[in-house]
Amino acid sequence: MGDKDFLIRAIRLAEDGIKEGGGPFGAIIVLNGEIISEATNKVVHSNDPTAHAEILAIRQASKVLATHCLSNCVLYTSCEPCPMCLGAIYWSGIKTVYFAADRQDAETAGFSDKYIYDEISLSHEKRHILFKRLSDVDGIEVFRIWDRFENKIRY
Amino acid sequence: MGDKDFLIRAIRLAEDGIKEGGGPFGAIIVLNGEIISEATNKVVHSNDPTAHAEILAIRQASKVLATHCLSNCVLYTSCEPCPMCLGAIYWSGIKTVYFAADRQDAETAGFSDKYIYDEISLSHEKRHILFKRLSDVDGIEVFRIWDRFENKIRY
Repeated sequence: MGDKDFLIRAIRLAEDGIKEGGGPFGAIIVLNGEIISEATNKVVHSNDPTAHAEILAIRQASKVLATHCLSNCVLYTSCEPCPMCLGAIYWSGIKTVYFAADRQDAETAGFSDKYIYDEISLSHEKRHILFKRLSDVDGIEVFRIWDRFENKIRY
Repeated sequence: MGDKDFLIRAIRLAEDGIKEGGGPFGAIIVLNGEIISEATNKVVHSNDPTAHAEILAIRQASKVLATHCLSNCVLYTSCEPCPMCLGAIYWSGIKTVYFAADRQDAETAGFSDKYIYDEISLSHEKRHILFKRLSDVDGIEVFRIWDRFENKIRY
């Protein structure tokens, strides 16, 4: 199977997911030409706002490979990843992502992907969500404790 | 307990999490003045790159409340949420977030939060990860199927 075939498979999963009550999104993760995980959106029926197809596929692939690092994997997703999923991709170490629809298409279909991309680029005070730093609470000391902790595993 | 107390508790969780092998991050979610979930970073020891404190706290709160919508909840997190967690906050409907350290402090401590914020604002071709749209694969039809699906639950 080539990139196009894997992407078509991710879209087919998205279609199947609709009938199961999920949003119209699917994703698969491939390592050395083999599918190691696949997922559909499960936000509503698993009561989990983080249950996007890409997040579930990443979590499953990490479980299969028993590591939080998926640096040799490729992600195929029916739609451009939202900021949450994009962040997860960076943290996972995945270096290649193929997608079909984009954030504008998702917006047309009624999803907030583009809105969240727009919000993320705004300063805290301009966003629709209140992000407030309490500057009289010390959030730095815990990083110093981490720095001194000898058995830490960086990620 | 007031906002400051909840935030201090999130930082104490972060500190406890270090000894358990997690990154130095903690988060709690409060509804009507009561803590309904709390979590520490578990990326390394749960082999899950998405297991940030905020993501785990959101998933747990959604489970407790049996809904993907946390619109009346407040999140307290030891450090400014990374783009993944920020996206999760938007999708969850949370409207208020308090934090102590910020993305620069996290960068100084060796974490990629600021790097990912910088990447997200770049066009696809300028990013360090390859995001490639395969324009000869139809990613729109699945949205049309979703649009026609009568039993869909929007989120």
